[in-house]
Amino acid sequence: MRVHNFSAGPAVLPEEVLKEIQENLVDYKGNGLSVLEMSHRSKEYMEIIEGARARLLKIMGLSDEYVAMFLQGGASTQFYMIPLNFCADDKVANYIDTGAWSSKAIKEVKILGKKLHIAATSEDKEFTYIPKEWELSDNAAYLHITTNNTIRGTEWMIDPDVPADVPLIADMSSNFLSKPLNFSKYDMIYGGAQKNIGSAGATFVVLKKSMLEKINPGLSTMIDYNTHASKGSMFNTPPTFSIYVIGEVLKWIEGNGGLVGMQKINEEKAAYIYDVIDGSNFYKGTVVKEDRSFMNIPFRLPTEELEKKFISETTANNMINLKGHRSVGGCRASVYNSLPMESAKVLAKFMIDFEKVNK
Amino acid sequence: MRVHNFSAGPAVLPEEVLKEIQENLVDYKGNGLSVLEMSHRSKEYMEIIEGARARLLKIMGLSDEYVAMFLQGGASTQFYMIPLNFCADDKVANYIDTGAWSSKAIKEVKILGKKLHIAATSEDKEFTYIPKEWELSDNAAYLHITTNNTIRGTEWMIDPDVPADVPLIADMSSNFLSKPLNFSKYDMIYGGAQKNIGSAGATFVVLKKSMLEKINPGLSTMIDYNTHASKGSMFNTPPTFSIYVIGEVLKWIEGNGGLVGMQKINEEKAAYIYDVIDGSNFYKGTVVKEDRSFMNIPFRLPTEELEKKFISETTANNMINLKGHRSVGGCRASVYNSLPMESAKVLAKFMIDFEKVNK
Repeated sequence: MRVHNFSAGPAVLPEEVLKEIQENLVDYKGNGLSVLEMSHRSKEYMEIIEGARARLLKIMGLSDEYVAMFLQGGASTQFYMIPLNFCADDKVANYIDTGAWSSKAIKEVKILGKKLHIAATSEDKEFTYIPKEWELSDNAAYLHITTNNTIRGTEWMIDPDVPADVPLIADMSSNFLSKPLNFSKYDMIYGGAQKNIGSAGATFVVLKKSMLEKINPGLSTMIDYNTHASKGSMFNTPPTFSIYVIGEVLKWIEGNGGLVGMQKINEEKAAYIYDVIDGSNFYKGTVVKEDRSFMNIPFRLPTEELEKKFISETTANNMINLKGHRSVGGCRASVYNSLPMESAKVLAKFMIDFEKVNK
Repeated sequence: MRVHNFSAGPAVLPEEVLKEIQENLVDYKGNGLSVLEMSHRSKEYMEIIEGARARLLKIMGLSDEYVAMFLQGGASTQFYMIPLNFCADDKVANYIDTGAWSSKAIKEVKILGKKLHIAATSEDKEFTYIPKEWELSDNAAYLHITTNNTIRGTEWMIDPDVPADVPLIADMSSNFLSKPLNFSKYDMIYGGAQKNIGSAGATFVVLKKSMLEKINPGLSTMIDYNTHASKGSMFNTPPTFSIYVIGEVLKWIEGNGGLVGMQKINEEKAAYIYDVIDGSNFYKGTVVKEDRSFMNIPFRLPTEELEKKFISETTANNMINLKGHRSVGGCRASVYNSLPMESAKVLAKFMIDFEKVNK
């Protein structure tokens, strides 16, 4: 029996994708070998990676003005690559701080000794909202935002406007491809694949090609985006299997209505849980309503004792990973693209029943 | 039918490992989810990664004086991390250049503007041998070697002696765990997993803990080995599935006689092919006999025409990836740990038959 997996990442994958991968695990489509064993330069593998790349840009509605790359090291590696590549010494890296991962991205700018400007922050209220206004510095190298805060459960509901000469860079790790966005407003979009579009081990980077001309000279080979863009992510051996998984998930997204389809099911899933929270004095949401994430739903119970009991009983009832991030406590349900509707329903029903017994 | 896969990497995996992975792909050992979907902080996954780490050190015969890490970005990422971490500004990075990957490692030292000394090189004869003597600089930060040249097919047959105050660092990407070594002579051993111990997407780094004290201050978080050593490779999401594959391959190595067992079968496999080359005027080895690799066997045929025909006919006969690296041409058979004995026999027999028809 499949568990209901509310993990914040690595996260649930569509069962039909897993079955497809399983079927082909020892012998990929009659080629006599596993994808795990394939030379990354073989014809069969080139079809896999090129297919994933093309499908990604197609789903995002982006033209060949953009290049899609599959790298390694997670968003954490991008945190230092971005200022190294795109912030020249006379420029200022601009960030909007919405907590957790934004803060980590900002820390790397400081370590590098680059000029930094916090254009806005929601730190005053413990990152429980998304800033609606921001002020860029002069000489801005770029503006960096984090479109969804996995830990706090806040999400950008708009694509921010920036002056034409300021590149917009977004860490979309935890809400990528969960809804239609005006992706062409962004100059770089990146994130770890292990939440919405695949398994751990691959980092997607979608870069406007005009950004390649802005890259600082003299960078270490693997840190320079030119290395990967010019070699089709094949300068060195890419994370071949993780990219294959991404490709299969992208096919599944396409087959389920694309981004419009994802948005519809994601809103419906989140609504099941938010409705319970909103209709209750027992459960309490932790962020302002208008900025509530459709991906990560943190909530508190009246006492930590009850939270412990809730985690324990959900686990016993086949619902796993509902514990909030260790830095904030409480409970959290992550309801990414691949989480089945049934899982959200089962959790919502359990929450109602648990409240009846324990309030 | 399984192909005979002579790929230089990503490379063949043991069929029984693939079958085990396949069986557990949708539902890992009755836990109701795939390893691909597991939170890296879950109990089930912690067992996988800790098991792999412990088994790796055990196979290497290393004590807890060493820490084993599973990182991302391949050896190419280590090429710049090593000088950044271990070469202070007043020190000199020492390298023995045996071609290809050594040369790439050296290039990254130059990009960083660190002091560099080439302690020995076999460039004078196109990297067709391993230097037997070397001279370290004063103030050496470390000596770096590459224990097997995947492209040229040369291999170190000894663990080099260095003065006690000079750390020895080795890129073992292409012969790791293929034979017993005196691993405790090394202060750092690293490489991509996709040749001898797993699939693409994970980089193993085995570091003597005393090295952690030598790390340069002020490094970007993900570049600093302290980050990964102190968090058990869990500072950020590790490449979970690739590490799982490594764990399964390590079990297979243990179950097949460990490093002594690997050496025995690897020597036997290589002998099948080297014997054909040595007994023929048709095939020609490309490196000096005493330094011939047990992992990668490059050879030439009398003409490029015949090489083309050889590649084409082997492929038609279910033997794939026998083309030499594009930088050197010719043919190459990679016979890593997981290559079945049968594959080496089949190739050797084919080579004899091909010679008869075409000489």
